[in-house]
Amino acid sequence: MTFTGRISFELPAEFGHRDVTPEVAALVEDSGVRSGLACVQLVGSTGAVTTIEYESGALADLRRAVEQLAPADGHYEHNERWHDGNGFSHVRSALLKTGISIPILDGELQLGTWQQVIAINMDNRDRRRELVVVVVGDGDG
Amino acid sequence: MTFTGRISFELPAEFGHRDVTPEVAALVEDSGVRSGLACVQLVGSTGAVTTIEYESGALADLRRAVEQLAPADGHYEHNERWHDGNGFSHVRSALLKTGISIPILDGELQLGTWQQVIAINMDNRDRRRELVVVVVGDGDG
Amino acid sequence: MTFTGRISFELPAEFGHRDVTPEVAALVEDSGVRSGLACVQLVGSTGAVTTIEYESGALADLRRAVEQLAPADGHYEHNERWHDGNGFSHVRSALLKTGISIPILDGELQLGTWQQVIAINMDNRDRRRELVVVVVGDGDG
Repeated sequence: MTFTGRISFELPAEFGHRDVTPEVAALVEDSGVRSGLACVQLVGSTGAVTTIEYESGALADLRRAVEQLAPADGHYEHNERWHDGNGFSHVRSALLKTGISIPILDGELQLGTWQQVIAINMDNRDRRRELVVVVVGDGDG
Repeated sequence: MTFTGRISFELPAEFGHRDVTPEVAALVEDSGVRSGLACVQLVGSTGAVTTIEYESGALADLRRAVEQLAPADGHYEHNERWHDGNGFSHVRSALLKTGISIPILDGELQLGTWQQVIAINMDNRDRRRELVVVVVGDGDG
Repeated sequence: MTFTGRISFELPAEFGHRDVTPEVAALVEDSGVRSGLACVQLVGSTGAVTTIEYESGALADLRRAVEQLAPADGHYEHNERWHDGNGFSHVRSALLKTGISIPILDGELQLGTWQQVIAINMDNRDRRRELVVVVVGDGDG
């Protein structure tokens, strides 16, 4: 069986983030899937989805790491061509990627206690971001 | 339902890339899956698959970022042991990973307008690379 | 059809790694799935799963690269708040991510000859780590 859902929300520029675990878990519950997986995708080329312990320290540390990977004030050929100033956003998104898949057992997303699913807006402006979630697997029957 | 396909093509050394979105989308259409996901894998340990805006600026910027992650002219223990000179390729591939999964809704890959699926050859020589695609989900019925 | 399994093992601190390909392949065989995918997740926020040529040189090179991404002796706000010293572990895990999905064709994981699935313990202490594997797809019938 296959179940699909969408989640959308506003996120601030540059590293606006949201713990989407409750919303993804609610979709899993709605799906009725007990064994399977949830495939989560942030639509677009300037965002990312990953997992982390959702507390301000770890989030600040991750932000600093991605700033080093692709500094916001660096030189980007994308910016030379398009003058939209978000070359760093594209690089960060391509490196972190925009999706993950998470196994489901006994109807539960298989995450650690201190492991949350986060959506990150890497763009240089506030954005409404959309997550698409597909749940595939077997129900109780 | 499950549908599988293979795509292969030649790519230049070091950062040869290809926008494989049309080929993956064609496989999704052939599959008849309307709700589900496409799991895309570049077979081998010196390539990568991710998404990016497929324009020369962003591609050049990503290339520079992965060059910083693992410089082609750096020192690698892999090269010391095997003398094939592609230690940087293995590191870049392990960091970016060789696959992604993309949700399908209404028969369409859930990507942004400026978000394409790219295959990258990270090896230090031209390579014929193979993508395996599995489409899982439900059809119209 | 959907098949689930768990694998657990001890790994040393900081970059303890294990080639889990044989165990994942055994679960795929047990599942009876011939066409589909295996979704592999290391549960927790201080580990990672990726693929690499499983030989000591490439592993040492990858270790050095992730050490540069998030040095073990760096300053982390996570450590300031929680005093557990594993801020670098969380950053490394969020960047590499804790899971991958691999296509299955003809009952075989679609990996290259020199491409293995590895689980990495990024934490600052030895850990028993658990992998959850979900196999989704079609059997022979």
